[in-house]
Amino acid sequence: MPGTIVTDVPRPDEGGVAALRGYGVATVHEAMGRVGSLGPELRPIQQGVTIAGPAVTALCWPGDNLMIHAAVEQCSRGDVLVVATASPATHGMFGDLFATALMHRGVRGVVVDAGVRDTATLRELGFPAWSRYVSAEGTVKATAGSVNMPVVLAGQQVRAGDVVVADDDGVVVVRRERVAETVRASAARAEREDAARAAFSQGELGLDRYGLRQRLADLGVGYGAWADIPEAQ
Amino acid sequence: MPGTIVTDVPRPDEGGVAALRGYGVATVHEAMGRVGSLGPELRPIQQGVTIAGPAVTALCWPGDNLMIHAAVEQCSRGDVLVVATASPATHGMFGDLFATALMHRGVRGVVVDAGVRDTATLRELGFPAWSRYVSAEGTVKATAGSVNMPVVLAGQQVRAGDVVVADDDGVVVVRRERVAETVRASAARAEREDAARAAFSQGELGLDRYGLRQRLADLGVGYGAWADIPEAQ
Amino acid sequence: MPGTIVTDVPRPDEGGVAALRGYGVATVHEAMGRVGSLGPELRPIQQGVTIAGPAVTALCWPGDNLMIHAAVEQCSRGDVLVVATASPATHGMFGDLFATALMHRGVRGVVVDAGVRDTATLRELGFPAWSRYVSAEGTVKATAGSVNMPVVLAGQQVRAGDVVVADDDGVVVVRRERVAETVRASAARAEREDAARAAFSQGELGLDRYGLRQRLADLGVGYGAWADIPEAQ
Amino acid sequence: MPGTIVTDVPRPDEGGVAALRGYGVATVHEAMGRVGSLGPELRPIQQGVTIAGPAVTALCWPGDNLMIHAAVEQCSRGDVLVVATASPATHGMFGDLFATALMHRGVRGVVVDAGVRDTATLRELGFPAWSRYVSAEGTVKATAGSVNMPVVLAGQQVRAGDVVVADDDGVVVVRRERVAETVRASAARAEREDAARAAFSQGELGLDRYGLRQRLADLGVGYGAWADIPEAQ
Amino acid sequence: MPGTIVTDVPRPDEGGVAALRGYGVATVHEAMGRVGSLGPELRPIQQGVTIAGPAVTALCWPGDNLMIHAAVEQCSRGDVLVVATASPATHGMFGDLFATALMHRGVRGVVVDAGVRDTATLRELGFPAWSRYVSAEGTVKATAGSVNMPVVLAGQQVRAGDVVVADDDGVVVVRRERVAETVRASAARAEREDAARAAFSQGELGLDRYGLRQRLADLGVGYGAWADIPEAQ
Amino acid sequence: MPGTIVTDVPRPDEGGVAALRGYGVATVHEAMGRVGSLGPELRPIQQGVTIAGPAVTALCWPGDNLMIHAAVEQCSRGDVLVVATASPATHGMFGDLFATALMHRGVRGVVVDAGVRDTATLRELGFPAWSRYVSAEGTVKATAGSVNMPVVLAGQQVRAGDVVVADDDGVVVVRRERVAETVRASAARAEREDAARAAFSQGELGLDRYGLRQRLADLGVGYGAWADIPEAQ
Repeated sequence: MPGTIVTDVPRPDEGGVAALRGYGVATVHEAMGRVGSLGPELRPIQQGVTIAGPAVTALCWPGDNLMIHAAVEQCSRGDVLVVATASPATHGMFGDLFATALMHRGVRGVVVDAGVRDTATLRELGFPAWSRYVSAEGTVKATAGSVNMPVVLAGQQVRAGDVVVADDDGVVVVRRERVAETVRASAARAEREDAARAAFSQGELGLDRYGLRQRLADLGVGYGAWADIPEAQ
Repeated sequence: MPGTIVTDVPRPDEGGVAALRGYGVATVHEAMGRVGSLGPELRPIQQGVTIAGPAVTALCWPGDNLMIHAAVEQCSRGDVLVVATASPATHGMFGDLFATALMHRGVRGVVVDAGVRDTATLRELGFPAWSRYVSAEGTVKATAGSVNMPVVLAGQQVRAGDVVVADDDGVVVVRRERVAETVRASAARAEREDAARAAFSQGELGLDRYGLRQRLADLGVGYGAWADIPEAQ
Repeated sequence: MPGTIVTDVPRPDEGGVAALRGYGVATVHEAMGRVGSLGPELRPIQQGVTIAGPAVTALCWPGDNLMIHAAVEQCSRGDVLVVATASPATHGMFGDLFATALMHRGVRGVVVDAGVRDTATLRELGFPAWSRYVSAEGTVKATAGSVNMPVVLAGQQVRAGDVVVADDDGVVVVRRERVAETVRASAARAEREDAARAAFSQGELGLDRYGLRQRLADLGVGYGAWADIPEAQ
Repeated sequence: MPGTIVTDVPRPDEGGVAALRGYGVATVHEAMGRVGSLGPELRPIQQGVTIAGPAVTALCWPGDNLMIHAAVEQCSRGDVLVVATASPATHGMFGDLFATALMHRGVRGVVVDAGVRDTATLRELGFPAWSRYVSAEGTVKATAGSVNMPVVLAGQQVRAGDVVVADDDGVVVVRRERVAETVRASAARAEREDAARAAFSQGELGLDRYGLRQRLADLGVGYGAWADIPEAQ
Repeated sequence: MPGTIVTDVPRPDEGGVAALRGYGVATVHEAMGRVGSLGPELRPIQQGVTIAGPAVTALCWPGDNLMIHAAVEQCSRGDVLVVATASPATHGMFGDLFATALMHRGVRGVVVDAGVRDTATLRELGFPAWSRYVSAEGTVKATAGSVNMPVVLAGQQVRAGDVVVADDDGVVVVRRERVAETVRASAARAEREDAARAAFSQGELGLDRYGLRQRLADLGVGYGAWADIPEAQ
Repeated sequence: MPGTIVTDVPRPDEGGVAALRGYGVATVHEAMGRVGSLGPELRPIQQGVTIAGPAVTALCWPGDNLMIHAAVEQCSRGDVLVVATASPATHGMFGDLFATALMHRGVRGVVVDAGVRDTATLRELGFPAWSRYVSAEGTVKATAGSVNMPVVLAGQQVRAGDVVVADDDGVVVVRRERVAETVRASAARAEREDAARAAFSQGELGLDRYGLRQRLADLGVGYGAWADIPEAQ
């Protein structure tokens, strides 16, 4: 897969990026209509950190970090580096040396659909990472790949300039054309959630708030007392 | 799978529940004869918390949290909500809105054989959760299921009113008819373990304490020095 | 698999062991030429702890900890206990009673290619553990196995007396004959990494430092601006 | 887990069993309201065979086939042996010697939530098997378990006397109390499917036959031409 | 995820499709530069069948086949139906009723990133299928999704009109813009392979044919006799 | 991992190899004391074929088949090629071109702890293969590795010259020093199995033949009638 390194990628407006960061992964995911999640396998190595930023993408051969070196040069202040592999890989493809280089450039964090290493150091440095594995296994620098071409991580396409939002719940990607509408939808969603939270803390039930009693009845779900239902006992 | 919502489930005595909580998951599991574990895949999102309480069970379609709304209404002070899915699911089926509603009702925590989300908020709220996944992926409210019918999580049947005990080692379920005998067996087990712990801290060996030298000999296990065994080198 | 318990295993020099501990898992793995890793599935139950020591190996039947009892007797001050199973197992084969016995003997930690339990207590005791699973599921003491014969964990052979190094990045094993050369190679590697870290923190790029621009060209990787590449958009 | 061997289990009427066999796994599963499946992980070792019969259940320790020996004695003509393990196991727990013993007793097949072996011989003998693994790995005979107590395989409870139906699509279990109603529901389901098959073979669409056009509209799903939708291109 | 059903999708020229079918999955994958594979998890339910055709894509909620009904209407002679789910699913989402409807329309086969069922009947009908699972578990028809919007299966994006090639080795997708160049590259690749096959059958070595002896030397790989290398023995 | 290619590996006597082939994988595995299995994940691509032969081992970087080219040259008549990767890989690392070259040399088959491809052609050629995956995904030829150094596949060490036996039940490896004793033990095992088979086909029970009734009693397993045990119903 000889490839291409794409330069001069336009970034979305920082205002929208910052707003998405404020809403967090779960709210943004819901606001987009329940799409864009990178699923439960990409986990943070730290706790309590939220980042958002435009993606710089790298596509690597498994066990080979050559293209991450090329990707570093394409990273600018505020970006998030996103590393995919051409097929499943467990290697620790990203460690504290890359983090040092990226912190110099003002990069906000990294998402790797493979392994990361030097995790104790990364936590000390305060450079956040999300990955499928933590692994000490190192890599070679032998095989071609691409930078800033679209990649797929965990069933989700990510293009350069798309906005990556990541926190303790995982990672979500917002297509760059949809940042503004996603911010608006997230704001509306957050407002509805705040109202629901207030109501639920007072004892209101979702069954009533969302009109679900009728839906249960329509679906044929009935109520019965435990003493009357042998299969429940 | 149109289903049933079972009401008026009898709960076991709180004294027994509290006792089980005091012994913790590993001791209770051993005391029952090494049954009841929900296995290594259901993990806590927090560290250092132990809970115990009678189960309120919900069976959901994958990616659909309709029946959790119905289950909330069936939860009482001291309960533990247990969520199973009709087939494997990765969604974040439980988040901070549900936790808010359940905390109002005095529920002690949740066990989900799928994903949870809003994990940073759940930790802040102090609402403990055990789940197979952490995932931001949201759900629909479209398909029927059951509440308080027996469910299976991770190879273990859980019925409404069975006692769920959960800590850093995972989750164990105690059948409600066996709470009293399990408390007694746990007490005996804990006493034996305390004695063993004291002995081991003084240097006694399990080989001697449990009479295992004879068993090794009976099984044909022999001793030999490293220098005499080429395959060991 | 009736087996053998091997005694009088020679240990490598503590100076080399301590040096390896100082370099940590990722550096040692690289210094050996990217071999020896036990992969991403064996994870620590604690954070921020590094250990190194000669291995005492136990091979157990799944769900059976008889041979761990035999292995405890073979452990000396500074050792690391390494537990493999004859086929995949999820049980919590190691808990706080074993840890108590091993701490009395000055053992530094345990690596289990199955589950551990009593994890909250292990953290309180300060006895570090790496394992594939955390599980409350207990074991029997019924089936023969071996102590200090070579075992395979996660695709890596470990012999008694080989040096195990473990930290937040996982576990690596150094063959006992290669401790000295690995210490030397680790020192050289660490020096090169320190220099690279300093350079990267000043903005130098890996592309330049490692001469990778030519390699990319040789592999046919080209550069192009985003606006000119429809597939990138 | 010292256990119990349950004798004198009542079997359901053979007429119902034979009828379920005639409908096959997928139809029976649908007829019960989409429950009872043992999921996609239990696969046949042969192709084109359907069996049905009352379950004789065995619960074994992983890697230990002692209780299968006890279960053989409890098997009668027409039964299906169902083997579960107390925790996940990969061993080949069942092979051609057991098959020989069971064929003498008129047993129809075996379902193992672990491995089987001697698969070439089993196919030659015409003794059908469904299992999670094929594995040559043998077992010990050392640990207690149960026969004809309820077991859980792949998330589904199976009790002695429940009817197991198995074919190329997998395995489904019908609770013994529900055999008659399941036969009736299967007959109705099969009739509906035959009518649908005839209609579909003539070109009718499910959208029309099941009234789904309105549902799509209610859910907000719209139609648009490819040329008008940039995201589709 | 309320969605869109896209109509009037342009199909690539049948000549190119037929040519790709002739080359088969492995050759096409290589000819494209080792991209486009749907990986090892999507397996055929039959042996010895190769198909190729433009994709009609359906995106379903897990356990919900509503959108497959909508997709059937969009299928034309020679198409291949491609079914993705919004998150991982094990259900048997496709069976013989759908196959009957699709055969009436001249559809060539189906690729499902979930389960299929009625597999014995599908083989009898001669309707080929590739899927992640075989499962009898049925579905509901409750949740919105899309037809002919781009989907991701097993890490690979598939758009409506892209050409799907499937055989015993799995599934590969060719972007519709690249059909002609992929046919040319496949022809060249096939010619090179035929020549290599002839040479290898005469005893020529890949080491010589591909000039790899020098590469091994450049990489530092050396030769040594077994008797001289203790680690090899 | 720059490595070594080991030449002039001694092979075990063909008489012993042929004898092991005659006994098959399950019997050989038992005869060695239940060790040596490569587990349930390495599966044949064909049915009904048994092979045995001395191993030629190759250790490859994931997604890189360079060292297989080097290994071909080291293969002689009667050998079995065994391919391991330095970390998990899904690629189709072996296909019909390699098979053509190996058939010219009289090699008996291949075992790959990754993927194979061209499986339809391999079956036509009659060249048997066992692998973890079937995958069309191709490889590069860029990274160093080893030939005929010990490798680990699926938790089992294989050295050059060890005997690999493979059939429908999987793969087992016999250390070259133990071929003669394994043949003897296999013969004894086969004789015992033949006697047991004859007895079981006449209705004898394993409980009686192996003296297991006493063991059950010793373990505390009791008998009870279904009507007397509520938990069984």
